[in-house]
Amino acid sequence: MAKDKKMVEAITSMDEDFAQWYTDVVKKAELCDYASVKGCMVIKPDGYALWENIQHELDKRFKAAGVRNVYMPLFIPESLLEKEKDHVEGFAPEVAWVTHGGLEPLQERLCVRPTSETLFCDFYARDIQSYRDLPKVYNQWCSVVRWEKTTRPFLRSREFLWQEGHTAHATAEEAEERTIQMLNVYADFCEEFLAIPVVRGQKTDKEKFAGAESTYTIEALMHDGKALQSGTSHNFGDGFAKAFEIQYSDKDNQLKYVHQTSWGLSTRIIGAIIMVHGDNEGLVLPPRVAPTQVVIVPIRQQQEGVLEKAREVEKQLFGFRVKVDDTDKSPGWKFSESEMRGIPVRVELGPKDIEAGQAILVRRDTHEKLTVRLDEIAEKVGALLETIQSDMLARAASHRDAHTYTAADMEELKDLADNKPGFIKAMWCGSQECEEKLKEEAGVTSRCIPFKQETLSGACVCCKKPAAKMVYWGKAY
Amino acid sequence: MAKDKKMVEAITSMDEDFAQWYTDVVKKAELCDYASVKGCMVIKPDGYALWENIQHELDKRFKAAGVRNVYMPLFIPESLLEKEKDHVEGFAPEVAWVTHGGLEPLQERLCVRPTSETLFCDFYARDIQSYRDLPKVYNQWCSVVRWEKTTRPFLRSREFLWQEGHTAHATAEEAEERTIQMLNVYADFCEEFLAIPVVRGQKTDKEKFAGAESTYTIEALMHDGKALQSGTSHNFGDGFAKAFEIQYSDKDNQLKYVHQTSWGLSTRIIGAIIMVHGDNEGLVLPPRVAPTQVVIVPIRQQQEGVLEKAREVEKQLFGFRVKVDDTDKSPGWKFSESEMRGIPVRVELGPKDIEAGQAILVRRDTHEKLTVRLDEIAEKVGALLETIQSDMLARAASHRDAHTYTAADMEELKDLADNKPGFIKAMWCGSQECEEKLKEEAGVTSRCIPFKQETLSGACVCCKKPAAKMVYWGKAY
Repeated sequence: MAKDKKMVEAITSMDEDFAQWYTDVVKKAELCDYASVKGCMVIKPDGYALWENIQHELDKRFKAAGVRNVYMPLFIPESLLEKEKDHVEGFAPEVAWVTHGGLEPLQERLCVRPTSETLFCDFYARDIQSYRDLPKVYNQWCSVVRWEKTTRPFLRSREFLWQEGHTAHATAEEAEERTIQMLNVYADFCEEFLAIPVVRGQKTDKEKFAGAESTYTIEALMHDGKALQSGTSHNFGDGFAKAFEIQYSDKDNQLKYVHQTSWGLSTRIIGAIIMVHGDNEGLVLPPRVAPTQVVIVPIRQQQEGVLEKAREVEKQLFGFRVKVDDTDKSPGWKFSESEMRGIPVRVELGPKDIEAGQAILVRRDTHEKLTVRLDEIAEKVGALLETIQSDMLARAASHRDAHTYTAADMEELKDLADNKPGFIKAMWCGSQECEEKLKEEAGVTSRCIPFKQETLSGACVCCKKPAAKMVYWGKAY
Repeated sequence: MAKDKKMVEAITSMDEDFAQWYTDVVKKAELCDYASVKGCMVIKPDGYALWENIQHELDKRFKAAGVRNVYMPLFIPESLLEKEKDHVEGFAPEVAWVTHGGLEPLQERLCVRPTSETLFCDFYARDIQSYRDLPKVYNQWCSVVRWEKTTRPFLRSREFLWQEGHTAHATAEEAEERTIQMLNVYADFCEEFLAIPVVRGQKTDKEKFAGAESTYTIEALMHDGKALQSGTSHNFGDGFAKAFEIQYSDKDNQLKYVHQTSWGLSTRIIGAIIMVHGDNEGLVLPPRVAPTQVVIVPIRQQQEGVLEKAREVEKQLFGFRVKVDDTDKSPGWKFSESEMRGIPVRVELGPKDIEAGQAILVRRDTHEKLTVRLDEIAEKVGALLETIQSDMLARAASHRDAHTYTAADMEELKDLADNKPGFIKAMWCGSQECEEKLKEEAGVTSRCIPFKQETLSGACVCCKKPAAKMVYWGKAY
């Protein structure tokens, strides 16, 4: 029983130490483990099953948006990485370098891809000749490496899994449309599938991607009031096309540069699922992404007929991701375990229930109990999973709204930043100087210029000059 | 039209130059392209779609066999790679080394995984304590790197995609069972899904995997009579467990070493699909793995009602992977293109067909044409795809059988090796000396000791001493 005990030992309370709570949940829900290479992670079966469900759903949405999957090499020759000036400046300080192949030193060192813009550009330069070859709407699922100094499971690691879409278009308008389209795919996916409400908006020039003309982002608010950038979509204009000479002959027989975009979402989003929905009992998973949606816990399972009935109920629940916990642990341990793992619905089924032709359904999100008749359990479980999914989104949205503040001046903004973890909406003149001042004095960064603008006042929160935009500010992961 | 022309220009005949034919097909069917890093490849949408279908089907079969997916790091510290002596000797000469992270040299260099036994062992040593933790039946889908000198698309490249399963068991018997079970999963998958018949057997000690006690393999015969090792499954016994100290406390409270296996199948199998089924018109894809199963080519598509009818037929064929080729190319080009890409069934539909309420189905594998009534096209197409799938397997099996020979002595074996490309069955005494002699003198290697043994004679084909086993010999990719 030693192993079971570890599972259900109390975890650190989230109000006491949120960072420690996070680490405890990741470990005790068995999502990932540390690896022998510092800053890398082993994604365990329950963590990887989350990623598989994310991949499956997102890939379906990509394909409906005309995206085709490809695979580019893991390595980028140094000279290729250097072709676009801003891009290499952004990434060179944090890449891993391969210098030897087998027993021989390489003539040119290779970096392990931190992102694959340069590889796609190199390929597109060869593959695109005519307007007939456009648009290219390609994506790859892969791992990337960034040599981060400080790492945390899922949130920031030296290697992580992601998808990166890379597109090439005939016109600037089409590229901009695709950039926004894919951001909306991410946003809808987060809200509909992960029950995570997000703010959709544009990054300031200071925060945009290395080499991009504009970067769009979805920002989610974690339970502790910190923001997490959860997906980004970049419009490169024709900057990369000029650096890599990606030209096509148009219908008018003129050679023109393509316009490009890229967009990515990573295993980081698993950190968001944990930090948006989790509680002091552990993980709380939205039903749509949960690897196991329903666990059946037989009570007095050694008694004749109990396990058999549990298996019958499992069959009735065919179509859901369901399992029977028939291990030799006590029901109490099993309850705690299913809570730690965040399984949305628990079915408790004992001899008395069976006699009465009923079972108890327990919601993971609210701990609420419902008694249902066994002959209508499939229908009830289906409805309950739907309810849990929409309640979780509503709850996260309320939490986000309750932790979104507005600041009219620096005094107010600093006070909020110090005492009220959450998003701070404030007007901004558009200058990088004010943006830097906010970071120095209040410790907040611009999260995004939301698509849904509001006019809080006419003056910048910092310099009081005329304000161009309303911005979401916050502390971020 | 310049681009279309390239597509349907004749490719090299396979009888004239098989290697060039292969390269032509890979390129013209747009499966993959060369990358800026020598020996690496860009897998293009049609090539990647094949891999996605392979992944999807194989993963389903894995999950039915109790396998769970995980993800291990990309990097292996040098000291970890060195823990198992045979293993490091096998792989060290062909790995890529990372020596710098960001701007700093690393304290210990890291190799980019050529395979992940050492990473799984390192993880299992921490994760396994009790018999309750066993068995571990994990798998990962990832890319691996081996710094090969000579490379060919799909068949041998410096980076390739694969899955690698790694298991740990309480007993030697259970490990052996799992090794064989997974080999059979591969074999059934190849035969049922890819229409590739395989010989199932064991590798000789000389040919087994670095660090393995025994290696099992499936061997397929390509159209040119060369063999391709298409999937392998290894039993490690407790060798790795001892090197990495992976112990569990058993029910009797004794500390025992686990027994391990690993098994892998890679993008190499795409090379097998090409070389088993392809012909002088290009790729020929088995329906089950084909990204597009049916292409509808409208004839006189500018004529009123033709495209509309093609779309209607597309809707009727819902459930199959179907597309309408409505580009402005001529029907002739479209026919050639669909043949180059290996699409199993082409539907030709023109005004006269529509008037007669019919369409023409053309089989890619035999070029046979069938006229079918439009109101029963879905049913007919479904049946035809099934027929094509089973005919392709039967045809490949006949080809394999017609190119499998037996040799009683060295004279005969050398003659076959020189003049009759194919498998050569011959008796073997079991000595490495004879194995090496066959390689030197006849240029063949042992492909496998098949599970289905036959007694051709009592004497080794080479030394004439008593023969232990019947072996498949051949030239291989």
